[in-house]
Amino acid sequence: MDIDEDTIDLRSDTVTAPSAEMREAAATAEVGDDVYRDDPTVNELERRAAEAVGAEAALYVPSGTMANQIAVHVHTEPGEELLLERESHIYRWELAGAAKLSGAQTRTVDAGERCVPTPEEVREGLVSEDLHRPGTGLLSLENTHNYRGGVAVPVEGIAAAADVARDAGVPVHLDGARLFNAAVALGVDASAIVDPVDSVTFCLSKGLGAPVGSVLAGDEGFIEEARRVRKLFGGGMRQAGMIAAPGLLALENVDRLAEDHANAERLAAGLDALDGVNAPAPDTNIVVAHSDEAEIPAADLVEACKAAGVGCVEFDEHTTRFTTHLDVHADDVEEAVDRIGDAVAALSA
Amino acid sequence: MDIDEDTIDLRSDTVTAPSAEMREAAATAEVGDDVYRDDPTVNELERRAAEAVGAEAALYVPSGTMANQIAVHVHTEPGEELLLERESHIYRWELAGAAKLSGAQTRTVDAGERCVPTPEEVREGLVSEDLHRPGTGLLSLENTHNYRGGVAVPVEGIAAAADVARDAGVPVHLDGARLFNAAVALGVDASAIVDPVDSVTFCLSKGLGAPVGSVLAGDEGFIEEARRVRKLFGGGMRQAGMIAAPGLLALENVDRLAEDHANAERLAAGLDALDGVNAPAPDTNIVVAHSDEAEIPAADLVEACKAAGVGCVEFDEHTTRFTTHLDVHADDVEEAVDRIGDAVAALSA
Amino acid sequence: MDIDEDTIDLRSDTVTAPSAEMREAAATAEVGDDVYRDDPTVNELERRAAEAVGAEAALYVPSGTMANQIAVHVHTEPGEELLLERESHIYRWELAGAAKLSGAQTRTVDAGERCVPTPEEVREGLVSEDLHRPGTGLLSLENTHNYRGGVAVPVEGIAAAADVARDAGVPVHLDGARLFNAAVALGVDASAIVDPVDSVTFCLSKGLGAPVGSVLAGDEGFIEEARRVRKLFGGGMRQAGMIAAPGLLALENVDRLAEDHANAERLAAGLDALDGVNAPAPDTNIVVAHSDEAEIPAADLVEACKAAGVGCVEFDEHTTRFTTHLDVHADDVEEAVDRIGDAVAALSA
Amino acid sequence: MDIDEDTIDLRSDTVTAPSAEMREAAATAEVGDDVYRDDPTVNELERRAAEAVGAEAALYVPSGTMANQIAVHVHTEPGEELLLERESHIYRWELAGAAKLSGAQTRTVDAGERCVPTPEEVREGLVSEDLHRPGTGLLSLENTHNYRGGVAVPVEGIAAAADVARDAGVPVHLDGARLFNAAVALGVDASAIVDPVDSVTFCLSKGLGAPVGSVLAGDEGFIEEARRVRKLFGGGMRQAGMIAAPGLLALENVDRLAEDHANAERLAAGLDALDGVNAPAPDTNIVVAHSDEAEIPAADLVEACKAAGVGCVEFDEHTTRFTTHLDVHADDVEEAVDRIGDAVAALSA
Repeated sequence: MDIDEDTIDLRSDTVTAPSAEMREAAATAEVGDDVYRDDPTVNELERRAAEAVGAEAALYVPSGTMANQIAVHVHTEPGEELLLERESHIYRWELAGAAKLSGAQTRTVDAGERCVPTPEEVREGLVSEDLHRPGTGLLSLENTHNYRGGVAVPVEGIAAAADVARDAGVPVHLDGARLFNAAVALGVDASAIVDPVDSVTFCLSKGLGAPVGSVLAGDEGFIEEARRVRKLFGGGMRQAGMIAAPGLLALENVDRLAEDHANAERLAAGLDALDGVNAPAPDTNIVVAHSDEAEIPAADLVEACKAAGVGCVEFDEHTTRFTTHLDVHADDVEEAVDRIGDAVAALSA
Repeated sequence: MDIDEDTIDLRSDTVTAPSAEMREAAATAEVGDDVYRDDPTVNELERRAAEAVGAEAALYVPSGTMANQIAVHVHTEPGEELLLERESHIYRWELAGAAKLSGAQTRTVDAGERCVPTPEEVREGLVSEDLHRPGTGLLSLENTHNYRGGVAVPVEGIAAAADVARDAGVPVHLDGARLFNAAVALGVDASAIVDPVDSVTFCLSKGLGAPVGSVLAGDEGFIEEARRVRKLFGGGMRQAGMIAAPGLLALENVDRLAEDHANAERLAAGLDALDGVNAPAPDTNIVVAHSDEAEIPAADLVEACKAAGVGCVEFDEHTTRFTTHLDVHADDVEEAVDRIGDAVAALSA
Repeated sequence: MDIDEDTIDLRSDTVTAPSAEMREAAATAEVGDDVYRDDPTVNELERRAAEAVGAEAALYVPSGTMANQIAVHVHTEPGEELLLERESHIYRWELAGAAKLSGAQTRTVDAGERCVPTPEEVREGLVSEDLHRPGTGLLSLENTHNYRGGVAVPVEGIAAAADVARDAGVPVHLDGARLFNAAVALGVDASAIVDPVDSVTFCLSKGLGAPVGSVLAGDEGFIEEARRVRKLFGGGMRQAGMIAAPGLLALENVDRLAEDHANAERLAAGLDALDGVNAPAPDTNIVVAHSDEAEIPAADLVEACKAAGVGCVEFDEHTTRFTTHLDVHADDVEEAVDRIGDAVAALSA
Repeated sequence: MDIDEDTIDLRSDTVTAPSAEMREAAATAEVGDDVYRDDPTVNELERRAAEAVGAEAALYVPSGTMANQIAVHVHTEPGEELLLERESHIYRWELAGAAKLSGAQTRTVDAGERCVPTPEEVREGLVSEDLHRPGTGLLSLENTHNYRGGVAVPVEGIAAAADVARDAGVPVHLDGARLFNAAVALGVDASAIVDPVDSVTFCLSKGLGAPVGSVLAGDEGFIEEARRVRKLFGGGMRQAGMIAAPGLLALENVDRLAEDHANAERLAAGLDALDGVNAPAPDTNIVVAHSDEAEIPAADLVEACKAAGVGCVEFDEHTTRFTTHLDVHADDVEEAVDRIGDAVAALSA
């Protein structure tokens, strides 16, 4: 996409530009060779990131996909099953890495709008090793749930699902790419969400506004193995402190996510008021708009919005995703609703 | 299991002993080194097996699992999706070979008692290759459907599902381990069931009564690649004519499968009449008995039946499978019902 | 190849036809479903095969390739190194199964005519796990060494190599497809060769004359895991007793391998006497003839021999392999030398 | 390692601190979301990097390991052989990624101090696909050759090896982690080295001084596939322009590599003059010192140097590597030789 300057870019919260402070932090970061573990800024980021989610240790990686795929690789043996929600990111959008890089067989639960399997669903989905089956190696959960529209899954839901798995000796990973959005929406500390699981991914580069990077956290033994797998996957970087420094500032952006959520709520209300468009009130910063009533295909809506100066992405045949973030302000939201309204009107005509 | 002579062994139709004619055929088979393709009996079996299902070519392999796994390996590339029914044999009982040996990501449809996804379900399950997804590489169907109780899926059901996939450029494999049971139950030629698919597995060693071996059939190019993968998996055998010869006779056992089906029907009726047991009338030779009403766990029933002289297998918490075959006669069925009745009575007491 | 009746087939010892006794044994074998471990003949074969090599337990499999690949799969973890001789069968002729099915990285030693790495070569080849390397997971040796011309590697050579690996905590597998040829040639019991290693493959279908099947032997825990991997690879067979029965008789064919060796010696002498042909005196039943001096490409020699009524195989540009076996008698050897002599003469003219 | 300020860090050229200009460039870089291909700085870097090696297209990745592993993944199919030098980085230090991530079977040539296989060695190493072998999928070369001491392999050597492979239809990858060191040492343009190959890796983070990142270059179709594999491996980054900007400046550091080479030459001369130490004159910036004559194990030397204020790494039992780079000046070299001399003297005493 060629995004021009006037566009209000709601495609994703990954598009945030680094702040002046982040740029300054990059420019002045104390660095070293992180492959030799000599980069003090990366070391500090890993320490602070672990702390932020109440984990023993953490690892800085280039992307959320790598964090998730490392977790699958460390937790499972080839042939074991990976139990996860049918619309989860790992299953849907990571190029089948679980099967391809780790030989894991996926088993899915369709949790619908709950976004997290019930204890009963987990129980049914767990497979014991026997002569014919390798057994379940990992349960993976997601919070917030991206595809379902940034749903903040309650702590109890995560805990109940995780408990069933862990009681059966199966470790639990949480894809918390937008973990802090969930924490803010639920009014809890991130560590409360992470407490019942064995490992967690979260992204510095989404709502928190860092230019690059994600974090994988867990206990020390897990992170030690993860560091090795990071090297295998090619994620070892050198003077990574230059991007870890903005990442440290990103960790301070947690509270302001509430603004993104408020903006998203306003955006949803505005879109829902458009003829033929349904946009449920969002939990966090992702607004999902359904245009089936207006008989407008999402692909057309994305094109029309682009022409009108709003960036968004197609999610399904008649479903379009709009995401608020650090670079979107309250008045941008009003302007965006106006522009989208024009686009819808034009398409409905 | 130590099966004593008096036991009526209903664990599976794989337990059939080879007939006197099959033994004689083995003893007198003309053989050669099949890895050099010099075994005339194997060559004849592959020719006749292909003919029997209306395919261009066929390959003799040691097991149905190998036939299925070769099909997955040839049809898919690592990372592509394998779309199949949630309770299908390939997904459930083949040690996650699709992920482990072929790097395929599985996507499941819960077709319930229909056993075959509807065209709409196939359409929803197909994934187009894009930046995030490798796309669907294979649709695999199963007929008869083992786990659901030997259900003979109508030709139209297979065809409708297969057509959707093939229209989308996705090949279709049929796990027809018990293909001829389906054909007999449906009153059609096996080739009619196979006609809409690209490859098919069927077992000579189940209801057809051969001691060893299964067949993978498809077009010539496919079978040529399959022959290579058979070698990779270690399935190349030498003077295989000695077991292919009984396999040739097994191909003549198709019509008599009707007897097994009649026996299964009688068996199901007998079991259904027992207090607290439900055993729906079967399509083919697999009877599934539910003992939840009697509050008898399947594991206990299997044990009690064994003690009473009937072999059967646990399928689920309160579900037990009984399978009729070549070595089970009408009077065995009556006797089996009596013995099982005793077992149930003892457990209910 | 279309082998006509008058051809003296020296392509491989895999081409032996089953004897009348073997056919009778197949016809009268007591059988059961081996996947349920109910086949008494397979059980007896596994017991006797383990005994024959002094191992705790054994597993009957369809091919030597499967036995080897199962061993690699059980002994190694993905990414670990497999250390083996540069011309070994596993590396050269098994479709890269070690990498493809087990994710093992191969490291080779060129042991030349010694066929087995020296202790020093093993020491140099072993890799310790560190941050950059997964370490060696398995040393695999081969006896007799096929590609080098059926070389019988002395017990001490195997033991010395194996000891270095085992001292370093690395298990050792022996590809003894023709183990009993080695034992007979060396005048030792097979168990003496196997004693220093952790697992061994041997083929019933080569010099021992069985129609189908190989054996993987090792300790009980190893064989239990191997049984599971056999199922994964599709090697589980049903009434396998019908081919295991001839396998039991094959175990009695050990002593007569000396005849094959004597025939091979006579054959080599005859070939070596031909103008422009060098055929070193063989250790066992494999004669390797070099025709570079006569400037006859092996491919041409194979064709000319076939026309003259002798089966053989191309091994390298100017190297052709001739193998003696159960179905080749002393007078066949004389006749073969005459025919090959004619072929060579015609090509040299 | 805890590197204190006074240490002269010769462990690797990866330890270079970003220059003030690079920090400024990071701070002011124009950025966008590179996963959407919206980052103008990354786009510019990829354009300039492709140009610098005379390739059609290029891809920015987090590490040289990822660049190499993506190349293996795109060029080969599972089971195909990867032909490469026995001490090459891909084989030795990338955690067996070729086998583990791509299922490639490795075949090695021991090119010794030539560092590149001769045409004859390539010819012998190429395997044609047949019934038993999947064939060679890729030849990988390395320049400069790290393990052999930064050897700059002449253009003709690379071209001769590559030509044999490409004539056989086998693509060629060049691991040019230090490609520009080779170019400078050989007095040629980098594109002359790359011209005979299909793809090339080079690192911005080594001698060129960038904080993070490597480049994979090749033709457009190749890079398109590579972009997808980068995502699979988790190498997709967001506002990567912040680290790509210093990378752009790094591309201007090519000519000054000559200084590192001169420093290395002086360092080698100094070390070679020490009692019991041999340090051949280097081609580029890597000095390899052998201390076997002095009977000093490399591990001890590394420790003693560290204590004396020089960073270096153990390469082999009696071989230690010292690497010059951007942050090492002529007077540092003199000081380093003094300190290492003290360390050697202490250990020899």
